[in-house]
Amino acid sequence: MIIDVHGHYTTEPGALQVFRAAQLNGENPASSALWNEIGDDEVRESVESNQVRILTGRGGDLMLFSPRASGMQHHWHDPHVANEWARASNDLVYRVSKQFPQHFAPVAQLPQTPEGNFDGVLAELRRTVTEFGFVGANLNPDPSGTWAGKPLTDESWFPVYEAAEELDVPFMVHVSTTENPNFHTLGAHYLNADTSVFMQLLQSDLFTRFPNLRFVIPHGGGAVPFHWGRYRGLAVRNEWQDPSGLLHNVFFDTAVYHQPGIDLLTEVVPSTNVLFASEMLGAVRGADPETGVEWDDTLVYVRNAGLSDEDFERITCTNALRVYPRLAAHLEAVSA
Amino acid sequence: MIIDVHGHYTTEPGALQVFRAAQLNGENPASSALWNEIGDDEVRESVESNQVRILTGRGGDLMLFSPRASGMQHHWHDPHVANEWARASNDLVYRVSKQFPQHFAPVAQLPQTPEGNFDGVLAELRRTVTEFGFVGANLNPDPSGTWAGKPLTDESWFPVYEAAEELDVPFMVHVSTTENPNFHTLGAHYLNADTSVFMQLLQSDLFTRFPNLRFVIPHGGGAVPFHWGRYRGLAVRNEWQDPSGLLHNVFFDTAVYHQPGIDLLTEVVPSTNVLFASEMLGAVRGADPETGVEWDDTLVYVRNAGLSDEDFERITCTNALRVYPRLAAHLEAVSA
Repeated sequence: MIIDVHGHYTTEPGALQVFRAAQLNGENPASSALWNEIGDDEVRESVESNQVRILTGRGGDLMLFSPRASGMQHHWHDPHVANEWARASNDLVYRVSKQFPQHFAPVAQLPQTPEGNFDGVLAELRRTVTEFGFVGANLNPDPSGTWAGKPLTDESWFPVYEAAEELDVPFMVHVSTTENPNFHTLGAHYLNADTSVFMQLLQSDLFTRFPNLRFVIPHGGGAVPFHWGRYRGLAVRNEWQDPSGLLHNVFFDTAVYHQPGIDLLTEVVPSTNVLFASEMLGAVRGADPETGVEWDDTLVYVRNAGLSDEDFERITCTNALRVYPRLAAHLEAVSA
Repeated sequence: MIIDVHGHYTTEPGALQVFRAAQLNGENPASSALWNEIGDDEVRESVESNQVRILTGRGGDLMLFSPRASGMQHHWHDPHVANEWARASNDLVYRVSKQFPQHFAPVAQLPQTPEGNFDGVLAELRRTVTEFGFVGANLNPDPSGTWAGKPLTDESWFPVYEAAEELDVPFMVHVSTTENPNFHTLGAHYLNADTSVFMQLLQSDLFTRFPNLRFVIPHGGGAVPFHWGRYRGLAVRNEWQDPSGLLHNVFFDTAVYHQPGIDLLTEVVPSTNVLFASEMLGAVRGADPETGVEWDDTLVYVRNAGLSDEDFERITCTNALRVYPRLAAHLEAVSA
């Protein structure tokens, strides 16, 4: 079984964006009404010829599926708006996974706000995991979109980590859109966030306090594996833990869109800590005209990375089962 | 001849920091007085057992030498303070290069401020290049230290680019300290800046307007080579130029502190666009306990990257002479 841990619902029914526009327009639409407004056929069709077709056509089986990352927009300050927006988005992802449980396991959007809407975050995390069988959630390390908040290692985040440990779900660390014109969202802000968070963790002892907390850093970890020697050297000089000391709790996905990048990632990061992912349909679409390989068909690169069978199995399957233990229940339900 | 394009004067005489402290204390010390206060012996001793010893001991010959990057502190708003600080810092770098012209070619700090102190920047660029033979300058894409300013592609920067073209000097794109607790200066902010600037350039047609403007992106280009496929794919999807379209004007240094990183850099980026650099004495000091190789002894990695003799010569010498044409006059003066 090939498990892709990073896919977003970027082909949502149009009614979801209408709902969002109404929210931002100061109206107060109810997510429960949206559920009835969008039919099951529409949900099915939105992924059948898109993610399902592409995933299976490439040899994949199961995708961990979350709402559109750039659409999370946690910089909006109203907690009620955030709660309803996360609920609407998560309900749709759940409905996708109910129609194609063999292909999708749901991952939640959290209703974060710049001020820290932790009541809402904890409620939505519990709702999605315990009522709907979500296997993880995306945690935005920069809900303001301007890096006005505190590092993920600050104790203000601890209630969220306590819940994650209790529910035994990992977080993918994933920012949303930035409005800063210096940072292109997909080409800079996403990667910068990945790099920055790794560095926050390297300086801290967060995992001494939360030994079972797990973070998946997407996009191959931003700049981190490319600069692994820099981090090792900084750690020695500053008497921090070695980067390898984070590997019980920190994992990297393979959303890196060329062969040399995947080769480096799998050379530098132990195979126990790399999780197959395509981020499909995401930042990059279409095929490399030089090779004919679709940019985000990262399974091709992973297959060609010269891995042992054991390492390939870890990266494409067993690591995901270990990092996302609630996948087991999801898969049992599929078999049954 | 081996040319290292990225070294900082991180072993400055203590009087320079006393000068800076007086500035930040609201006093108005004169950079000219500092010149007399620091003796030639002190200047010589500050580098003789440090950069000179290490550079030559590793087989290097010439280093492009600029003031401490984290000390530029362009977020300080007073243009007069910025002007005097840059002048004091550049004078010292000049004095190092006068004592060891065979080992150091000077590169300038510019007196940027968050508001854009362009009169001061242009004056100091002209002074250092035309009076003192500086071969380039460091340009900070984030003088505010909080990314409050405009991208490097904004026309507000154009007077600086016009001067660079006229003087035929390249810029190394290098930020200074950030105060944002989300970003470790050496482990995140530097790399994020490199990534962000490349992305700014990819979206723009800046080099159509300034065909002879040249940027060296340090630290191996941040996350860029590791994500080269992402940039190629984004460019196709958004109908931007291909990343290779930037390579007449954009170059990457080799301040990447492990073998896999240098291997990827030299595999992905054409050898015409990689410039040898160590950033010594910089972010990382000491040796990898596993290999015994000093982290920033990047010449070891470049030598072991399986390059042809021609590519090695480009990366360690001829690219630098091409990108920094004023090096020719510096070297002629050394021979004479």
